[in-house]
Amino acid sequence: MEDMNPINSVGIVTPQDFLFGATGEDALRLDCGKTLRDVTIRYETYGILSEKADNAILVEHALTGDAHLAGYHSETDKKPGWWDSMVGPGKPFDTNKYFIVCSNIIGGCSGSTGPRSVDPETGRRYNMNFPVLTIADMVRAQKHLMDHLGIRKWLAVAGGSMGGMLAIQWAISYPDNLRSVIAIATTSRISPQSIAFNWVGREAIMGDPGWNGGEYEEQPQRGLAIARMLAHITYLSDESMRKKFGRNLQDSKDYSFNFHKDFEIESYLDHQGTRFVERFDANSYLFITRAIDYFDIADYGDGDLTKAFSRIKAAFLVVSFSSDWLFPAYQSRELVKALLNNGLDTTYCNIESSYGHDAFLLETKSLGTLVSGFLTARHLEVVS
Amino acid sequence: MEDMNPINSVGIVTPQDFLFGATGEDALRLDCGKTLRDVTIRYETYGILSEKADNAILVEHALTGDAHLAGYHSETDKKPGWWDSMVGPGKPFDTNKYFIVCSNIIGGCSGSTGPRSVDPETGRRYNMNFPVLTIADMVRAQKHLMDHLGIRKWLAVAGGSMGGMLAIQWAISYPDNLRSVIAIATTSRISPQSIAFNWVGREAIMGDPGWNGGEYEEQPQRGLAIARMLAHITYLSDESMRKKFGRNLQDSKDYSFNFHKDFEIESYLDHQGTRFVERFDANSYLFITRAIDYFDIADYGDGDLTKAFSRIKAAFLVVSFSSDWLFPAYQSRELVKALLNNGLDTTYCNIESSYGHDAFLLETKSLGTLVSGFLTARHLEVVS
Repeated sequence: MEDMNPINSVGIVTPQDFLFGATGEDALRLDCGKTLRDVTIRYETYGILSEKADNAILVEHALTGDAHLAGYHSETDKKPGWWDSMVGPGKPFDTNKYFIVCSNIIGGCSGSTGPRSVDPETGRRYNMNFPVLTIADMVRAQKHLMDHLGIRKWLAVAGGSMGGMLAIQWAISYPDNLRSVIAIATTSRISPQSIAFNWVGREAIMGDPGWNGGEYEEQPQRGLAIARMLAHITYLSDESMRKKFGRNLQDSKDYSFNFHKDFEIESYLDHQGTRFVERFDANSYLFITRAIDYFDIADYGDGDLTKAFSRIKAAFLVVSFSSDWLFPAYQSRELVKALLNNGLDTTYCNIESSYGHDAFLLETKSLGTLVSGFLTARHLEVVS
Repeated sequence: MEDMNPINSVGIVTPQDFLFGATGEDALRLDCGKTLRDVTIRYETYGILSEKADNAILVEHALTGDAHLAGYHSETDKKPGWWDSMVGPGKPFDTNKYFIVCSNIIGGCSGSTGPRSVDPETGRRYNMNFPVLTIADMVRAQKHLMDHLGIRKWLAVAGGSMGGMLAIQWAISYPDNLRSVIAIATTSRISPQSIAFNWVGREAIMGDPGWNGGEYEEQPQRGLAIARMLAHITYLSDESMRKKFGRNLQDSKDYSFNFHKDFEIESYLDHQGTRFVERFDANSYLFITRAIDYFDIADYGDGDLTKAFSRIKAAFLVVSFSSDWLFPAYQSRELVKALLNNGLDTTYCNIESSYGHDAFLLETKSLGTLVSGFLTARHLEVVS
């Protein structure tokens, strides 16, 4: 286990499943008006819940993430969880101090109920009969998990990108059930440019004959890969792509004068697309991007963000990255402004970085310092 | 004809075809090493060529443009040429003073030889047997047209976006055959981000079963529409999309909770994709975007732009737009720096605009003022 650097790794973790909604009464109510029965939430926990249950932090994953936040699933597991650099003993999300929870969102494809799950009504996969979800629905499902775990108030709910949207949604949906929000590289409302990219990605998936109206056995490979490659461009920045790839050619010294992978960037994207098809479900991609489209927190204030935030009690740490053009810094500033308009305890930092949107996974050092300090302050509030 | 506003319209124009390369000797040599026989160039002209043939301006179209720059093709024609706002009597490209030429590039699908043309060797369409072209090849074909028209020196070669690349290429390929270049919303080298977007667009086309290895009778509709919708996002700006569409819903008052067109921006993109399939050929799109990928003028100076420009004699007007993120202002500044390093007569302006890359077609007033002044100065050089 030396590879796992046991000094600051959470070590081996075992995912758990929480089931609810077996009866109609306990079913999950959704914004679309429908309900979801027999809901499974796949989750992992790290660290130990204090007796008072006052050291619990919920970490939200991004669009294609999962519950495997940190550590390893087995001794032969080669890759740690997706935010292992941030979560562990002595790390910013310090498992010596905090009890960390990460759960796969509903609609996902990594253990929680999603479009590929079996509909208890029909005995067959939901596929496109799965209800169209919202970010608020995903959070509502997590509230069931919270109650199950015996936690009354999160010390913090934290997340980057879509994970940040869920964190903000928590502060709106359950203002009394969290002390703070860490919203990283995110937004309070999806811009038309992002809606447009999501639209094109979904068109690529649904236009692949292999998609078959959602009733596929094998993934619609080309369509899903195109959606991923497109999205991947939006996660990088013009600058990071120039630094990392430039106009470097893949194999040859001169242009090949054909349509195969000539440039390194083409080969990289192709690889990203192929890998994605192996790990992420096409129907889940449709449903989750749609939930993102529908995310506009100002809806809770009749279009006025300040009004929407009037119910919030949480303290906020808001972090943006200078080269993020998917959720640019101005969107974080809009968020911060509405928080300050409500007199809320707000910390904001725009981190200088060339990594684009992906910076929230890469700028561990500067991000870690901010998160660590913010969490320590919140923790002192409850232990003192 | 009142609709056509005859006061400042060039009126009715008739496209012309110029054929060359009937013999092997006269064939068009290409950068890939192949040659092209029986080449047709579709072109239009406006205004009158002076006796000394010193008032001729070549205007280059962008990726999906054509030779129909200004005026109307018939009395019932409802839509003028693509840059009618800039070309006509008393307009910046003043047909009272200048003889304007616009030709469809080879590789295109609007009259000039392209992948859907018949290969004289086989008697069948080229399709994917068409040679992979470069911007320099397109310019080399235009040089044949120039000789045919009896023009020895263009007063200016002007273009926006890919048209700007052709204009810059002219200054490199034929330094003695032009007085000046007007390079608008363009770049001296394609960035990896642009290569990436082109790659995804081509993958969408080539992944559509209807494409059939390029041997289609009917267009690969979905793939081509996806490529276009994706490209269209890059032509707009985050700001212009927020101003024009925001998060407005198309028909309903609330989210429809399905995957149809819910937002105005989705409906707009869908419309753009559908219209494009009606007017532009899929194989042409593949070949032209590949030519764009390969465009890096620094190749003429072993990677050094200043060295590459050492052969240039033309004066330059370079124009960028503040919100253009496809060919951002820093790319124009790189171009300008290399021109100035060579002591070339250079005018540069970054126009404040929220229209993104499309600004080169929309910011007619500010762009027109710059173009008009620049051309007048060039014209005075030859007539005085």
